[in-house]
Amino acid sequence: MTRAFNFSAGPATLPETVLRQAQAEMLEWNGVGASIVEISHRSADFMAVAAQADADLRTLIGIPDDYAVLFLGGGATTQQALLPLNFAAPGQRVDYVLTGHWGKTAVKQARPYVDVHIAASSEAGGFRDIPAPAQWQLSNDAAYVHITANETIHGVEFRDVPDVGGVPLIADFSSSIASEPIDVSRYGVIYAGAQKNLGPVGITVVIIRRDLLERAGQPRADIFDYRSHVARDSMLNTPPTWNWYLAGLMFKWMLAQGGVEAFARLSQAKSALVYEAIDNSGGFYRNDVAAAVRSRMNIPFFLPDDELNARFVSESKRAGLLALKGHNAVGGIRASLYNAMPLEGAQALAAFMRDFQRRNG
Amino acid sequence: MTRAFNFSAGPATLPETVLRQAQAEMLEWNGVGASIVEISHRSADFMAVAAQADADLRTLIGIPDDYAVLFLGGGATTQQALLPLNFAAPGQRVDYVLTGHWGKTAVKQARPYVDVHIAASSEAGGFRDIPAPAQWQLSNDAAYVHITANETIHGVEFRDVPDVGGVPLIADFSSSIASEPIDVSRYGVIYAGAQKNLGPVGITVVIIRRDLLERAGQPRADIFDYRSHVARDSMLNTPPTWNWYLAGLMFKWMLAQGGVEAFARLSQAKSALVYEAIDNSGGFYRNDVAAAVRSRMNIPFFLPDDELNARFVSESKRAGLLALKGHNAVGGIRASLYNAMPLEGAQALAAFMRDFQRRNG
Repeated sequence: MTRAFNFSAGPATLPETVLRQAQAEMLEWNGVGASIVEISHRSADFMAVAAQADADLRTLIGIPDDYAVLFLGGGATTQQALLPLNFAAPGQRVDYVLTGHWGKTAVKQARPYVDVHIAASSEAGGFRDIPAPAQWQLSNDAAYVHITANETIHGVEFRDVPDVGGVPLIADFSSSIASEPIDVSRYGVIYAGAQKNLGPVGITVVIIRRDLLERAGQPRADIFDYRSHVARDSMLNTPPTWNWYLAGLMFKWMLAQGGVEAFARLSQAKSALVYEAIDNSGGFYRNDVAAAVRSRMNIPFFLPDDELNARFVSESKRAGLLALKGHNAVGGIRASLYNAMPLEGAQALAAFMRDFQRRNG
Repeated sequence: MTRAFNFSAGPATLPETVLRQAQAEMLEWNGVGASIVEISHRSADFMAVAAQADADLRTLIGIPDDYAVLFLGGGATTQQALLPLNFAAPGQRVDYVLTGHWGKTAVKQARPYVDVHIAASSEAGGFRDIPAPAQWQLSNDAAYVHITANETIHGVEFRDVPDVGGVPLIADFSSSIASEPIDVSRYGVIYAGAQKNLGPVGITVVIIRRDLLERAGQPRADIFDYRSHVARDSMLNTPPTWNWYLAGLMFKWMLAQGGVEAFARLSQAKSALVYEAIDNSGGFYRNDVAAAVRSRMNIPFFLPDDELNARFVSESKRAGLLALKGHNAVGGIRASLYNAMPLEGAQALAAFMRDFQRRNG
């Protein structure tokens, strides 16, 4: 058994201790005579796991009591469709700020239901910066403002919470949740696919300020209604129980590591190692994102030509550094440094980068 | 490690060999240096797993080439909302036949989008029978007819495919798929949450006759559009990869066991053992479902009073027979006998029932 350093953008690396516990409990969990994959979501045994995961996530992130927390299947993209259905009237104005690929996906899901207004966009500049909030063209009557806290493909991250006045701020935190402290009270809704910083694929966390649940929203199926999910504690239908359980193991691991403050220090240190290898390469490696908004989570970079990009991917894989190929939309290289990536992984990558440059620069 | 016979209605028991393989591969899968939980859904490694699962399910069920197959998160209830959005015009007439709780859930999801007509219902009689298809009040202009092939709570199962003329027949097969041969060509759409006969929780199979994808449907988000999911091979967003992988292991196991014909014989034999214990009890155990439509998958039954029901549940659990408590909506006892339940489980249950009656009858 050889576990490599895995820089996948998601589904992403998990802590070995979490995987070992899941492995040990795969045939029988907690003395119940069955695997946790095999028991009812409505059993007292699983309900306790679900409740503990909720409590641990609240502790980890610092979620105030006036926020509901949901654990849902369907992924973050499904939430992008549910946001307008639940929080805007049909055809109502909503403001979206585009700082990368995933903001555009959010707009695509919302357009059939609301009047989407792009309040700001860095697309013309190739998504290399975040437009200054003072320049955003916010609407007077928007139901909400939507941002993407970290853009996984373009490697751009909000470093501050933008002030959008009294309008609820909704943020896709899929790729940066729990990597540093978040002032949840500044947001109306936070949502995140879990398969990056929270661990397992197949489950999505949605954090909703409860007063927003009083909005009528739009005609929709019960399964698309956040109020129904809240009323049934995320068990309106059969939830992805194993994924929820694995997320719970990950929450416990993150708390034991020191919580989000520890991961803030770690992600700062890891990303600094890689950015230094880029910035000290004399242009051999190139990352074009404005320094102030460079992502600590996803670092896209480019070598001088496609042949070198390809050689970097294949040689790094042989060196035990996995999944460094950039997203097809932009090409090049991408290193994702989520919570479960140890400092040693970033050190190994930075060392490999310097060595590769020496041999090919 | 003690694995009991687990009669849970879902999430449900899995074959021990499947769990053992998942356990063995939890830290590293297929020599790739990572768990399959940790690798990208778009990696060649995972794409091969996904394609193999698709191919194996097509072999197992006998799915013709003119049907698309999707593997999606969100559960069967989400599909119940997507059906009218994809296959009916806004407000168009659709026919639903109600034979239990889950048919009503399907109606609840559809009502915001279409003119739901209840073409037949056995609700007045407590969902103990299936109305004769010749008596169904089908609409002339329905976009589709919806049935629930097996009702998990009420224990009622269609034994024949109803003839609904040229209108597409849509069936919720969540709790009976792959338990006997299905003539897929008689259906427009078949959908099934996997957590019963197909194995793992957190993934749903949708089988769609391709010509139906040409229907315009209703305004909807891209993530709610089956055409988009088909075009992207169920990878429009990050799918529940581990659950997909586990379903694939289950498909291989079912094929190795002899496929759906073998499970048809097995489910017939298992359910006969339990129904005999009921019918030979002189009224101590009671199942009120019409004999011709009794489910092979879920057998609800009742003891003479609630105190005996409760004692049956607690004593059977101590005897290594898990999760026999009936659904809250109907009470009593429920034994679910999905594909992964061996004959020995049904034998043990029938023996326990006779013994319990001897001591308490």
